[in-house]
Amino acid sequence: MTLPAATPAEAKLMDALLEAKLLVPSGVPGVFGRGAVFEDVIERFDAFITNSASPDGAERFRFPPVLNRSDFERSEFLKSFPQLAGTVFSFAGTHQEHMAMLDAIHAGQPWAEHQKMTDVVLAPAACYPLYPMAAASTLPDAGRLFDVFSYCFRHEPSPDPARMQIFRMREFVRICRPDDAVPWRDLWLERGLKMLRAVGLPVESDVANDPFFGRGGRMLAVSQRDQKLKFEVLMPIAADNPTAVMSFNYHQDHFGGIFGIKTADGATAHTACVGFGMERIALGLFKTHGLEPKTWPSSVRAILWPHQP
Amino acid sequence: MTLPAATPAEAKLMDALLEAKLLVPSGVPGVFGRGAVFEDVIERFDAFITNSASPDGAERFRFPPVLNRSDFERSEFLKSFPQLAGTVFSFAGTHQEHMAMLDAIHAGQPWAEHQKMTDVVLAPAACYPLYPMAAASTLPDAGRLFDVFSYCFRHEPSPDPARMQIFRMREFVRICRPDDAVPWRDLWLERGLKMLRAVGLPVESDVANDPFFGRGGRMLAVSQRDQKLKFEVLMPIAADNPTAVMSFNYHQDHFGGIFGIKTADGATAHTACVGFGMERIALGLFKTHGLEPKTWPSSVRAILWPHQP
Repeated sequence: MTLPAATPAEAKLMDALLEAKLLVPSGVPGVFGRGAVFEDVIERFDAFITNSASPDGAERFRFPPVLNRSDFERSEFLKSFPQLAGTVFSFAGTHQEHMAMLDAIHAGQPWAEHQKMTDVVLAPAACYPLYPMAAASTLPDAGRLFDVFSYCFRHEPSPDPARMQIFRMREFVRICRPDDAVPWRDLWLERGLKMLRAVGLPVESDVANDPFFGRGGRMLAVSQRDQKLKFEVLMPIAADNPTAVMSFNYHQDHFGGIFGIKTADGATAHTACVGFGMERIALGLFKTHGLEPKTWPSSVRAILWPHQP
Repeated sequence: MTLPAATPAEAKLMDALLEAKLLVPSGVPGVFGRGAVFEDVIERFDAFITNSASPDGAERFRFPPVLNRSDFERSEFLKSFPQLAGTVFSFAGTHQEHMAMLDAIHAGQPWAEHQKMTDVVLAPAACYPLYPMAAASTLPDAGRLFDVFSYCFRHEPSPDPARMQIFRMREFVRICRPDDAVPWRDLWLERGLKMLRAVGLPVESDVANDPFFGRGGRMLAVSQRDQKLKFEVLMPIAADNPTAVMSFNYHQDHFGGIFGIKTADGATAHTACVGFGMERIALGLFKTHGLEPKTWPSSVRAILWPHQP
């Protein structure tokens, strides 16, 4: 895969982040370690989300970065975004096959043939494990609301520091009657803008579409925009166009239908989700307020570090 | 892969954990979501580690669950533990190939042939990204000490709730002169036992070996034990034998030699690491004190929840 060259703005931000040891390069585009200061910002913004959302009383679950492959196959993610998904393979051979694999590695030859597909894939979004879980019982009358967080993988190597292959997503997910989904999503659109502006980020919302793959992709994207199924909150980070730091998706009956999630009156449940891109928000904060959080505006510090402003 | 049947003790603990919604099943052995109470215990024990280790002044870095594949190939993990490693594959084909992949999936046929190996693998331990990073500069005279934490993947599906395929590891890693590694590891062996006993866990330490693969594996294991390169701290959880909840490894010049890490006087650095198995420690706490942390002994609560004992 040929990587596009970094734009001057991307290169400049990347250099500054590496120099300040906020990010640590791995040698693979979009895969970084993080220094303590970067992590502290992520943790503090995560706590800010928790506080902002606490009146809602969401059910809190935390999922690991891998999913059940068979659930993932059913989700149809691979129909729309095959290029982004990561599947997990492993070795399952004999001593002889082990020797052959090592010989290939030492010779710098391909060794994929010595790996077999396992039962797990990498999570492309934090909400995926919820749908099969929610299908296990009928929804209460008011539906359900979940609070999830996980590492997500998307195979899109890029020189843009804000387009990572592996990143964290905090999500709230509503599973409910059809009429309840859009008002909930719209409430969060307003709340999300307010939260991000409170920490000084120059964000705007806009209707958006997913990066659907292949020939039919353009049509799917147009239809998604026409129906206003996806919104994003964006701000300038490093790329030429503003970068999405939050997204708001109304899936209609997509997941409810596939996984058989039923409302209290027996209809197929609708679902919607709201996601915070944790690394992108941290990068947005560093880009806007500078690389040293101790010097950030006191109004921002009062929100993120309420006990030591 | 045929999974061994759960022992009665494993089945009993698993049922209790699922019933209490501490763990959420994914349908894949060893892959679980976690409820809020389970996560709180992990976070509180993590904070206890931070407090206990803070006098050491370790450099804190956090790494994602995937690593640079080329660094991983050099590490020789695949020589010793090919069966445990997870590699990440993705789709990189045309519209036609996409259609063929979807057809295979819908027909319930294998679809591995439509996936290509990417540049990343899953991390098998939290310390792996450190060694290439530390090689980028000569060590200071006193060596370096790192504090890392990450999700780790090991392909060993099991009915034992304490043997997860994806789990979190907090590690401290010492990179230093040969003479400095073992005393540091031994100090942590003592400190680790003390910490775990302070929260009421019936732990003991023992010399140990890694699960080396294949014909030569037994010999490597014997040699590792003879040289006392690996210790574990163990306690009864669900399996017939005690389960390791911490491990202490002296790698000699293995990583220093492979990655070219040099001490201040130009010699190959030695490395040692100490790892806390976060899920296992949480399971050990639930097993020992019961499934409801509010009822745990006040001495344990005072350590884990110092602000709300």
